[in-house]
Amino acid sequence: MEKFNALYAQSGGVTSVINATACGVIETARQHNDKIPKLYAARNGIIGALTEDLIDTSHESASDVAALRHTPAGAFGSCRHKLGTLDKHRAQYERLVEVFSAHHIRYFFYNGGGDSQDTAHKVSLISQELGYPITCIGVPKTIDNDLPFTDNSPGFGSVAKYVAVSIREAGMDVASMASSSTKVFVLEVMGRHAGWIAAAGGLACEKAGDAPHIILFPEVRLQTAQLLNRVQECVSQFGYCAIVASEGLRNPDGSFVAESGLTDAFGHKQLGGVAPIIAKLIKEKLGFKYHWALADYLQRSARHIASKTDVEQAYAIGKAAVEMALAGKNAVMPIIVRESNSPYRWSIGEASLERVANVEVSLPKNYITDDGFGITEACRQYLSPLIQGEAYPPYLHGLPQYVKLKNLAVEKKLKTNFAIA
Amino acid sequence: MEKFNALYAQSGGVTSVINATACGVIETARQHNDKIPKLYAARNGIIGALTEDLIDTSHESASDVAALRHTPAGAFGSCRHKLGTLDKHRAQYERLVEVFSAHHIRYFFYNGGGDSQDTAHKVSLISQELGYPITCIGVPKTIDNDLPFTDNSPGFGSVAKYVAVSIREAGMDVASMASSSTKVFVLEVMGRHAGWIAAAGGLACEKAGDAPHIILFPEVRLQTAQLLNRVQECVSQFGYCAIVASEGLRNPDGSFVAESGLTDAFGHKQLGGVAPIIAKLIKEKLGFKYHWALADYLQRSARHIASKTDVEQAYAIGKAAVEMALAGKNAVMPIIVRESNSPYRWSIGEASLERVANVEVSLPKNYITDDGFGITEACRQYLSPLIQGEAYPPYLHGLPQYVKLKNLAVEKKLKTNFAIA
Repeated sequence: MEKFNALYAQSGGVTSVINATACGVIETARQHNDKIPKLYAARNGIIGALTEDLIDTSHESASDVAALRHTPAGAFGSCRHKLGTLDKHRAQYERLVEVFSAHHIRYFFYNGGGDSQDTAHKVSLISQELGYPITCIGVPKTIDNDLPFTDNSPGFGSVAKYVAVSIREAGMDVASMASSSTKVFVLEVMGRHAGWIAAAGGLACEKAGDAPHIILFPEVRLQTAQLLNRVQECVSQFGYCAIVASEGLRNPDGSFVAESGLTDAFGHKQLGGVAPIIAKLIKEKLGFKYHWALADYLQRSARHIASKTDVEQAYAIGKAAVEMALAGKNAVMPIIVRESNSPYRWSIGEASLERVANVEVSLPKNYITDDGFGITEACRQYLSPLIQGEAYPPYLHGLPQYVKLKNLAVEKKLKTNFAIA
Repeated sequence: MEKFNALYAQSGGVTSVINATACGVIETARQHNDKIPKLYAARNGIIGALTEDLIDTSHESASDVAALRHTPAGAFGSCRHKLGTLDKHRAQYERLVEVFSAHHIRYFFYNGGGDSQDTAHKVSLISQELGYPITCIGVPKTIDNDLPFTDNSPGFGSVAKYVAVSIREAGMDVASMASSSTKVFVLEVMGRHAGWIAAAGGLACEKAGDAPHIILFPEVRLQTAQLLNRVQECVSQFGYCAIVASEGLRNPDGSFVAESGLTDAFGHKQLGGVAPIIAKLIKEKLGFKYHWALADYLQRSARHIASKTDVEQAYAIGKAAVEMALAGKNAVMPIIVRESNSPYRWSIGEASLERVANVEVSLPKNYITDDGFGITEACRQYLSPLIQGEAYPPYLHGLPQYVKLKNLAVEKKLKTNFAIA
């Protein structure tokens, strides 16, 4: 068998376990160095591939590579650059072929969400369209959990765990103070287009009265009167009210709530977040003292409280990607297949990139309770396995020890630069 | 020795380890049930003491009491009610004596911050002023770390760890994306009057270039030009800039930055937080894409990432409080004494409540670097031991298992109610 190098790239918003996938890719490629002499990584995602800014991962020690498994964020850098269509932006693909060819790269692993799988699909067409034999494997990752076919998207389970743990803890804090102080707490979470992350907050509520009492989904338009009624009920019944609000919550007219409220000192609209707007609304109408939090990047980088299930799946997906490439598969994406719910059992399957590209999976209607403020038992059964287990990083001096790779550049072989639009 | 009951109350904003102190109090009192037959807890702090709303802790199982050690927030409820002076608000103290007397209470443990230690001091004067023999022990607790004499305030070390871990993780996230996307991240943390919590973020920076690159302290007025220069330098040098900003940051004129920026749809000032204002300022002047987070209650309830040192000290303080009471000491507060820095060794000492009351310890000037944006080595040596060690709670179904006590009420013996002002 002829030997060819491989290229791995991270794409889009990073997660607390995307490096576990990188670890799976690198460790598996090293086991097959008879077939893949060098595994390169693109610096800052596809931009590094286009600009021939490659990293030689063979300089990283085995222990540093192993440490990727417990290190959040993107070890090689990421970006949000999307390749255009093959017919209209052919130059980008021709450039990729130049870079691949110059470095004897015939395997390409693209680790990202929906947009990136679309890019991976286009790259997988290079063989037939441009005549350069490339094997392209899409590697799933996104906290948004909106990739099709796979049981879940690596990265999501850990955000889900962070949000469920956080609202449980903050809810207990508010409950302690509520008799004479703060009665309402709003935690804003990510998920602009789908309520998967907000829904995960609902896992913290295991019996009546537990936080969160209300979830505000992007899928359910804000009905102010019903919300206020519900808040009043919770305060009357439980003494306080804990709310998880998605950043993607919309007004009845379809506009984002986050865009509707605040103006800064210059008179500009402030994308200040949903949480303060909801908290202020409740204060105005019901008079309850409030607090709110906006977790932002904290939720997607919180490797310290990652889901063990998520870490294991992220690693397995990376490993499977290399194995699929070596088995000669092109234009596929390894996926997680749920074998059973209880106990949760899963295996690795595959999906065609052509079918994956540009399909977004939204929260099913039957995952949201009829009142629009909670999750159903079906949703709980789906979500609960994804946050199982803890996978703590090592600590030194009281702080998690995350690895920083050497990331040594590969010498450039091309004479030309490539301008990123 | 005659037997008398004891009363324990939690006061002020709760922490992730105040229940570890409660655990120390209850377990130690149980070991001495020949002298303290019943340990009561006041429901919702001093309000419960005044309204005779007492909890009989003897109904709680040993395992539930032990679980307090890993349970955040206030298990018996807390409040921010402050007793007035003895001469002007004598009725409150007379009421306390009525309640103490009706329930044979002669030991009072008041677990709180500066205001609460002032209250504890006043209660300790009841013996001489009202002739009822009460032994009052102040038990320190506050995330603000502003209590005098003690090496640190139980509760602070865990917030410090949360903030340091969070800015390390979020900083890595931003670093991954910075080449083509978000370049500036601002994490807003608590500490309206002193920069202890903001300073703790600095622990995450162990070598040049590590996050956070800038800390904005309440002690250093916002100098816009210097801040913008520093942000530009960081982005040029490291590719991104991670900032920890205290909610108590002030403008050059002394007003709070958080009050200066945003107006809501009704034209009202919005206490929206320092983070969005700083982030927006940087965007306006330097053009960098930003993200920001506001941790709020998440930081002080995050028992999942509590400092083991903090948990142990919180427990030891509760244990010592009971032992001091049994030793016949009145009007004292157990404190933590730092015996050595490296290795960190500590013991329990005591301070007089008279000297503790109403003294706030602020961040020493020599803990802030000359440029006003970082912490010094002296600060690091003080802070670092406080975040050492992890003390993970048990998990079930992927979620931390926190105890909810039965909190059974003690039958009221008084015929009169007491109205809380």
